[in-house]
Amino acid sequence: MTLNPAWDITYTVAALTPGATHRVDQVTQRLGGKGVNVASVLHQLGESVLATGLGRVESDLPTDFSPIAASLRRTVAVVDGRAATGFWEPGPAVSAAEWARFRRHFARLSRSAAVVVLAGSIPPAVPVDAYAQLIAIAHQRGAATVLDTSGPALAAGVAAGPTMVKPNAAELVDLPSAIPAGTTVVTSHGVDGLRAGGWVARPPWDIAGNPTGAGDAAVAGLARCLSVGELRGERLAAALRDAAALSAAAVATPVAGRIDPALYAELLPLIIVAEIG
Amino acid sequence: MTLNPAWDITYTVAALTPGATHRVDQVTQRLGGKGVNVASVLHQLGESVLATGLGRVESDLPTDFSPIAASLRRTVAVVDGRAATGFWEPGPAVSAAEWARFRRHFARLSRSAAVVVLAGSIPPAVPVDAYAQLIAIAHQRGAATVLDTSGPALAAGVAAGPTMVKPNAAELVDLPSAIPAGTTVVTSHGVDGLRAGGWVARPPWDIAGNPTGAGDAAVAGLARCLSVGELRGERLAAALRDAAALSAAAVATPVAGRIDPALYAELLPLIIVAEIG
Repeated sequence: MTLNPAWDITYTVAALTPGATHRVDQVTQRLGGKGVNVASVLHQLGESVLATGLGRVESDLPTDFSPIAASLRRTVAVVDGRAATGFWEPGPAVSAAEWARFRRHFARLSRSAAVVVLAGSIPPAVPVDAYAQLIAIAHQRGAATVLDTSGPALAAGVAAGPTMVKPNAAELVDLPSAIPAGTTVVTSHGVDGLRAGGWVARPPWDIAGNPTGAGDAAVAGLARCLSVGELRGERLAAALRDAAALSAAAVATPVAGRIDPALYAELLPLIIVAEIG
Repeated sequence: MTLNPAWDITYTVAALTPGATHRVDQVTQRLGGKGVNVASVLHQLGESVLATGLGRVESDLPTDFSPIAASLRRTVAVVDGRAATGFWEPGPAVSAAEWARFRRHFARLSRSAAVVVLAGSIPPAVPVDAYAQLIAIAHQRGAATVLDTSGPALAAGVAAGPTMVKPNAAELVDLPSAIPAGTTVVTSHGVDGLRAGGWVARPPWDIAGNPTGAGDAAVAGLARCLSVGELRGERLAAALRDAAALSAAAVATPVAGRIDPALYAELLPLIIVAEIG
């Protein structure tokens, strides 16, 4: 579920020169946002998935978004031989009526979901406790929840007791000091892997590539393991293994929301899963 | 008529730093392209105008475009306190069927037009003699034509004998050595004004501002004078006066396709029109 999706546009230019006008050699455009990336990885894995959120989107994924009047925000990345330069538009205006309509839509979809992933930032006008509201709605309809966001939206969302929350190392400061008893915290530490419940899972060697989207692939792995039952003990360890392998297989692909299936299959048995001493 | 319209997007950022990610403070977006700018000026002047061309557009102007499968190209201008940095997407793919459909659409519209303005670049897949084809169609339906383009499209278009052609100084090299007898050549020379048929028209003082769109405003003036009859002798001199005043009034506005009406009214009687000695 993506409250703040974006068109991720990439421009390839010969060399970025401030003050100059550039003919763009190549334009790529894809629907982006953390929840969309999670859905995309699950779709690639053949899992039954439906992407939802706020905005009028087009995608090859199964989607059922709740449209709003404002256009989707865009992110533009200008890539030359040396670096990527990014321009992020602000999120869209969302009216109170649009937010209310989305909650009803979300409640309907939650009835047929085993797991709901709530991922990414929230648009400026959406209440800061948006994820807390949605987590309560999903739990009432019998769905488990995975929360992956940052800042005040993370703090407010965790208070509602999601089934699982996946902060990265930088987002740990946004966690409230008291985590609800029913919530499993999975922390991601880049090349040092994933940690939860006394377990750590990490790839056997460093994977070179593009770390954008690696966290989303990990969330995809956690969500699909969660869809078949609670994650405790050895089942949590197995979920961390799957998530770490998917994350590494995402680093090896240049595009967020995709994994390298051959690398995933190769890494899965090789992921090092250990109890934290 | 705009074969290659664009969404002109402007991003305001604090300071453009290559390799960094920028939060965009302000986003503006408008339909652009030289023919759209001409239509926009005529619309502001209260003239009866219809903008057409290739692509799926949205605008406050009266428009009747022929849609194509490909999306509209975008131009992105990133503005900080120091400079504007531009990124121009390539033009869209246009199939032979889409081009044929546009010509039929253009022929229908030409029947009720007094003057057709053909302005701007042509998309990559459209034949280089596109303007020549359209000028012939417009003349067969009784419309006069004004051509404002550059490069091979200008050379090929002039050969078809448009009623008027408006190259700027840099585009003079693209003109064929033999201009058809019925074609009036108006050349624009920035602050030095407009020249045609032994006349020069220029503003009484230098106008500070944004010269983007000044040529389009001049074309708007020429087209509306042409709509009421042939431009020869004193009528050509009067048209140059109007075009020079509109051009200067466009420089004084920050947005292409708009003029400053008060400045236009002030300048019109003050434009210096002289015979070239």
